[in-house]
Amino acid sequence: MTRGMSLQELAEHTGSHLQGDAGFRVMSVAPVETAQVQDISYIRGGKFRHFLDSTQAGALILPLELAESYTGNCLVNANPYLAYAQIVALLHPAPRPEASIHPSAVIASDAEIGEGVSIGAHVVLGQGVELAANVIIEAGCVLGEACKVGENTRLYPNVTLGYGTQVGERCIIHSGAVLGADGFGFAPDNGAWYKIPQVGNVVVGDDVEIGANTCIDRAALGATRIGNGVKLDNLLQIGHNVQIGDHSAIAACTAVAGSVEIGKHCQIGGMCAIAGHLSIADHVVVTGTSMVSRSITHAGVYSSGTSATENAVWRKNAARFNQLDKLARRLAELEKQLADLQNKGSN
Amino acid sequence: MTRGMSLQELAEHTGSHLQGDAGFRVMSVAPVETAQVQDISYIRGGKFRHFLDSTQAGALILPLELAESYTGNCLVNANPYLAYAQIVALLHPAPRPEASIHPSAVIASDAEIGEGVSIGAHVVLGQGVELAANVIIEAGCVLGEACKVGENTRLYPNVTLGYGTQVGERCIIHSGAVLGADGFGFAPDNGAWYKIPQVGNVVVGDDVEIGANTCIDRAALGATRIGNGVKLDNLLQIGHNVQIGDHSAIAACTAVAGSVEIGKHCQIGGMCAIAGHLSIADHVVVTGTSMVSRSITHAGVYSSGTSATENAVWRKNAARFNQLDKLARRLAELEKQLADLQNKGSN
Amino acid sequence: MTRGMSLQELAEHTGSHLQGDAGFRVMSVAPVETAQVQDISYIRGGKFRHFLDSTQAGALILPLELAESYTGNCLVNANPYLAYAQIVALLHPAPRPEASIHPSAVIASDAEIGEGVSIGAHVVLGQGVELAANVIIEAGCVLGEACKVGENTRLYPNVTLGYGTQVGERCIIHSGAVLGADGFGFAPDNGAWYKIPQVGNVVVGDDVEIGANTCIDRAALGATRIGNGVKLDNLLQIGHNVQIGDHSAIAACTAVAGSVEIGKHCQIGGMCAIAGHLSIADHVVVTGTSMVSRSITHAGVYSSGTSATENAVWRKNAARFNQLDKLARRLAELEKQLADLQNKGSN
Repeated sequence: MTRGMSLQELAEHTGSHLQGDAGFRVMSVAPVETAQVQDISYIRGGKFRHFLDSTQAGALILPLELAESYTGNCLVNANPYLAYAQIVALLHPAPRPEASIHPSAVIASDAEIGEGVSIGAHVVLGQGVELAANVIIEAGCVLGEACKVGENTRLYPNVTLGYGTQVGERCIIHSGAVLGADGFGFAPDNGAWYKIPQVGNVVVGDDVEIGANTCIDRAALGATRIGNGVKLDNLLQIGHNVQIGDHSAIAACTAVAGSVEIGKHCQIGGMCAIAGHLSIADHVVVTGTSMVSRSITHAGVYSSGTSATENAVWRKNAARFNQLDKLARRLAELEKQLADLQNKGSN
Repeated sequence: MTRGMSLQELAEHTGSHLQGDAGFRVMSVAPVETAQVQDISYIRGGKFRHFLDSTQAGALILPLELAESYTGNCLVNANPYLAYAQIVALLHPAPRPEASIHPSAVIASDAEIGEGVSIGAHVVLGQGVELAANVIIEAGCVLGEACKVGENTRLYPNVTLGYGTQVGERCIIHSGAVLGADGFGFAPDNGAWYKIPQVGNVVVGDDVEIGANTCIDRAALGATRIGNGVKLDNLLQIGHNVQIGDHSAIAACTAVAGSVEIGKHCQIGGMCAIAGHLSIADHVVVTGTSMVSRSITHAGVYSSGTSATENAVWRKNAARFNQLDKLARRLAELEKQLADLQNKGSN
Repeated sequence: MTRGMSLQELAEHTGSHLQGDAGFRVMSVAPVETAQVQDISYIRGGKFRHFLDSTQAGALILPLELAESYTGNCLVNANPYLAYAQIVALLHPAPRPEASIHPSAVIASDAEIGEGVSIGAHVVLGQGVELAANVIIEAGCVLGEACKVGENTRLYPNVTLGYGTQVGERCIIHSGAVLGADGFGFAPDNGAWYKIPQVGNVVVGDDVEIGANTCIDRAALGATRIGNGVKLDNLLQIGHNVQIGDHSAIAACTAVAGSVEIGKHCQIGGMCAIAGHLSIADHVVVTGTSMVSRSITHAGVYSSGTSATENAVWRKNAARFNQLDKLARRLAELEKQLADLQNKGSN
């Protein structure tokens, strides 16, 4: 349990302006609709605005325009969501294993283990693995030969890193993620498939988060590269030789086929499919369930897919989809005939 | 190998009416098209009805309307599929590890282990873990601090439960599932992403089944909740703070984004995408591959997506999709012009 | 590091015709755009053709039509991609663990271990497991009771095989794959779901590759069968009782629902959804993101889905999709009225 912090301390930590009781003690963070008097919450505006009057929260984090008319305790911040995140980190620190090496871990004799490293039970580290200071490798992780992990990076339980994988500093890799499995490459050979050996690796930058059960394949040759600050959700497929630019984020269940280049500061929604060998410019937003089958050369928002409706309605429209070209041709024919008729009429 | 059971015993176990030889010995269960004389099979009707004449099965489970004219051994049951399931469970019990704790398991000193618990090789149980009676934790599972697992629940090999995860009674969690990884939450901060600490947990009810490699994220605050009797297939993504009502079922590869509320008795097909913060009423059916981008407030069947056709046909229709609005405007213009022409003609 | 091989040796190994310096020593393989003088690369034609003039590669693999006018070192081969793959395998062999059984592995007393087998740290082999000669089981894999693995097959770390799974010879199974979890089968029972016990198994042929975190469910009864030479990418869902014919390949994130039969030599793209109980003929190609909701009875290329466009354009067209049937009816009405008008005019 936290002992809490004063509103004054929270204001200083988050660079917020304080309104109200500086000594008010905040014990925890809660959603505005369920917060109680010991809690701090936040309102950015929009549909949550009406909670300004009704919330039981002991303090709020507010943007200037909402704070002006608010008479309770509050922190005024241009980015209330960021200040909220900072306060959660202060009041609710996640459990962190202590620096130690569990005796059941199997560690190659030439592995290099930095100071303050934590290695959990049943971890396996292959030959030549290098772990920098304060790395956390939780139970059941397996790191193949010559993997390198940067300072303060944390691998949750049961992560697998294939040989030669490199991960930067301050990264978080969630359970079940697999980095460095072979890319999917085969040459046709008389009706069968001949495996293209995948001899590149995976290189992950700093401050990257990789979700549970996400797969990032090793390059066929060279490296599959994940830039600095990239955030990858769960169950993603990142194909061989993909390059993802700094600070891009991809939501769950999206598949990025081989050799795709995604720019910086992109946001790709969930369940998207990006076809192989495309490139996507910086600052592109792709909304969820989109199929990207051509390169995107300009920043902007891109979408595809159709939304669920009542089955009886959908059934009729979906059937018409497969007549679309014919319908369009009939429309063009009608236009022609009508023009003929109009011409005749006007003659 | 099973010693089999008499048709009489099977009738009693399943609450069926018996027709034919009560002492007939059933050794195993088989599909109606391949069943032999020692097997029991079932026919619900529909396209399998014609097997009534040709099946080699020694006994059948039939609904009343099919049983009336059937002269062989049979069990008459209003729900033949359910009776079949009950008989499979009787004749083909799955292997079940015996109650014991493998010496290679690493168990925190303060973990509470109930009676009859089975803990497999290389399992890791964190501090404060509580396993109720008859729980089975198979090889390679890792349970973080303070996880609680209810009576008779079984975790197959290589499951990961993050700290604080709670699982009810009689649940089944398949290999590679990850409960309690961080939700995907970041605040934008000058072009980079600031992590929103995910400090809630995952709470799973009783009689829940969770498929292989499925991910259920911990809540940002509060709990991600899976109701009683919920059935989740493989490779699902269940985002942070999702709430799934009792007895709902979701097929493989579907993604449910953060804070979605799914009602009770819903059926969601495979490869669906449900956008964040929506709510779905009780008794809603969503067919496979649907994109749900608005809340669904009434029970019913909902769908989206279009079906595969020959590539040459699809190519033309898909191209027209991106002209749809223009086509609709041309259609409206034509209607106007034709009306003008008709008016002129009638004047 | 490789010592390299002479161009003459590479020509012999790949059955290529040699042009240029037979003694030229090739050290490694590289993409044509970044290759240096010690590297060999390949050009099949198409957009890479222009690198013929500019590449720094010391040697190239070329098809006859490109080789005729090329004056540098080259190997002439009808299938340059295949020859390239063969040369990668020669020059860049993947690390291969030596034959040995790690002392931390937990192996049932009656398991049968062939000659030359490698068993990694923390592996668990259940009762009655049979591993043929030269099998590699890497760290953290768990094989349930009575699993059988054929000669020269390799399981990467953290693979799970449920009881009774059979894998053929020369297969590769990547990390996190789960074979033999229960299929998703439940009988409705008064508003709840009654589990259909899944008592079949998974049978995988020879020369199969299975990607990371892919799931292949055990059959309800009988077997889920993966044919010889099949290649499965990452994060696939293969439902219970699916049958996949020899030499078919499926790209990442595709879901194949229960009891589907896929023919031989099929190619299924990524993120496809194939509905249950369908059959797909031999030599069918399904492009990525397709929803297959009817059986495909003839070889050919099949597709569905629509491509991402600018969000503002998509929004209008997607809205029209849900009016499609009405638009089509309005079009038909217009055609009728215009025909009436034309008839009137001509009378």
